[in-house]
Amino acid sequence: MRIGIDAMGGDHAPTATVRGGVEAAQLMPKIEVVLIGVESRIREELAKEKKPPKNLSVVHAPEVVEMDEPPAQALRKKRDSSLGVATRMQHEGRLDAFISAGNTGAVMAFSLTGLGRLEGVERPAIATLMPTEHGTCVVLDVGANLDSKPIHLAQFGVMGSLFTKYALGRENPKVGLLSVGEESTKGDALTVRAHELLTRTNVHFMGNVEGKDILKGKADVVVCDGFVGNVILKFLESVMSMMEASILKYVYTSLRARAGVFLMRPVIRRFAKDLDYEEYGGAPLLGIRGTVVICHGRSSGKAIRNAVRVAQRVVEQGVNERIKEEMAHLKLGEV
Amino acid sequence: MRIGIDAMGGDHAPTATVRGGVEAAQLMPKIEVVLIGVESRIREELAKEKKPPKNLSVVHAPEVVEMDEPPAQALRKKRDSSLGVATRMQHEGRLDAFISAGNTGAVMAFSLTGLGRLEGVERPAIATLMPTEHGTCVVLDVGANLDSKPIHLAQFGVMGSLFTKYALGRENPKVGLLSVGEESTKGDALTVRAHELLTRTNVHFMGNVEGKDILKGKADVVVCDGFVGNVILKFLESVMSMMEASILKYVYTSLRARAGVFLMRPVIRRFAKDLDYEEYGGAPLLGIRGTVVICHGRSSGKAIRNAVRVAQRVVEQGVNERIKEEMAHLKLGEV
Repeated sequence: MRIGIDAMGGDHAPTATVRGGVEAAQLMPKIEVVLIGVESRIREELAKEKKPPKNLSVVHAPEVVEMDEPPAQALRKKRDSSLGVATRMQHEGRLDAFISAGNTGAVMAFSLTGLGRLEGVERPAIATLMPTEHGTCVVLDVGANLDSKPIHLAQFGVMGSLFTKYALGRENPKVGLLSVGEESTKGDALTVRAHELLTRTNVHFMGNVEGKDILKGKADVVVCDGFVGNVILKFLESVMSMMEASILKYVYTSLRARAGVFLMRPVIRRFAKDLDYEEYGGAPLLGIRGTVVICHGRSSGKAIRNAVRVAQRVVEQGVNERIKEEMAHLKLGEV
Repeated sequence: MRIGIDAMGGDHAPTATVRGGVEAAQLMPKIEVVLIGVESRIREELAKEKKPPKNLSVVHAPEVVEMDEPPAQALRKKRDSSLGVATRMQHEGRLDAFISAGNTGAVMAFSLTGLGRLEGVERPAIATLMPTEHGTCVVLDVGANLDSKPIHLAQFGVMGSLFTKYALGRENPKVGLLSVGEESTKGDALTVRAHELLTRTNVHFMGNVEGKDILKGKADVVVCDGFVGNVILKFLESVMSMMEASILKYVYTSLRARAGVFLMRPVIRRFAKDLDYEEYGGAPLLGIRGTVVICHGRSSGKAIRNAVRVAQRVVEQGVNERIKEEMAHLKLGEV
């Protein structure tokens, strides 16, 4: 299995991306890790490694897509960027999966145009892992789609369920539809209709879940439009930073608190780890003809390495094949 | 000024509501507090008080709207509930404001039908306070409206701005539109159009804000549709509970951590206080001909008492008059 890493994507690229690639190659010796990007920059980073793993290679891509570059422009002008090269490689079967912490919009644009949608899938969705009181849950979509239609949400439920079952190995995952009340009649026009459609799929649909149920871990898979998913995802990111600000604000007011923080450090670290996106290994773009895992722009080497593992599971477990099969049987009669 | 309290509304009613009323009356001697509900039950609670304040009275309402009763049914069948009686009293000018921790849907239904909308307001909205790294911000709508139109969001911005300026005393509040990116072109169809309309209002519109900006306190007022606002509000409520679960999970694994928790207790309490809805005194329903403040169902006496203070500020500062004035000048040319 060959997994490509966008060496140029992310706030800490290429240092973090190359480090992640090296770690992934070391930890998963059966995978071939391919670093894609400006070769000279990658080589510079690799020179820092004592002994670069043998299952790690470099593919040159001369152009670089900037983090804030408009996706449409990147698509038109940067065909030889790491994103362009990786997409072609995957399209031609020379790569099984691709990881990027770069410009999310551009990654989606290249993937959708270069790889296309899986048969039967109306709209691909980004599925992310969120922490819960008991472990994690999968939330989708978190930003690939705005203004979703009911059929899209129903399909997200199907894709999220299959990803969770096969890639995460969770039996019979419970799928919840994010809304403002538990009753099937509660919600906006989109969710009320999507609720109805979800009952007609083969997923283990548990009905609506509310904002408070996500972290409580009521559902294994939480389905929502990309607008609300994206807002929540970013909101969650800020919780940790608010907690830090709050602790800092008060802790220096007393010696007692300072001693407490010192003693609590392992607990705080564990909690921070619970909320830490780096642990979760990126968010797959489900529903495309290929495997693309999107990482946070701030991803460290560890985050990249964990994303490689997610990509490996998706490929190994044939998640895409299973999505295609399920979609072929899914007759929801909507457009 | 006469402020009514729904003595029968909320999970801890009438104990918490009567307690809140007593505290409010004690703290704000110039206000007349009116407890509305089943008189015998209220008297029972009042009997626990050593010396009930003189500026506290009771108005009997024989019927009770249950927490999970369908609002339409309550509206039809419970005209003599605390909600029905209070709404009539306010409509007839015998009450200046009303606080309820009861069935939110029913409170809205009674208020909208019994009091009506302020002239020029298309849709009333619930405005809630959320904690930020520096203090608080106002988020609206958090559930009165689903499937909002752009004009509604623009009006929420205006109402939220006036409430924040006058009732909270914050000069020139910055209004942000919740979306998935900072650029004006980022967002779903609703927010992109609402962005345009907000630039034409008189509010200090700072553009789009993202999910991560809410707790960071980037905006004083965050505008969104009631669906996403409600999801976020409930999500935030669960953060505290997750933190507790996480701390409990790890803390008993070591003596060191237990000692740390003991020492940190004041800091944790402060953080918990930052996240605590009780501190914020309920959420006004803005845009109606009257003043109604909605409290969380779990409200304690303190929460009720703080809500009375918010209601008092809204009335005293003439927030409704200012909204009416502003709406009269607002020509957005949309329906």
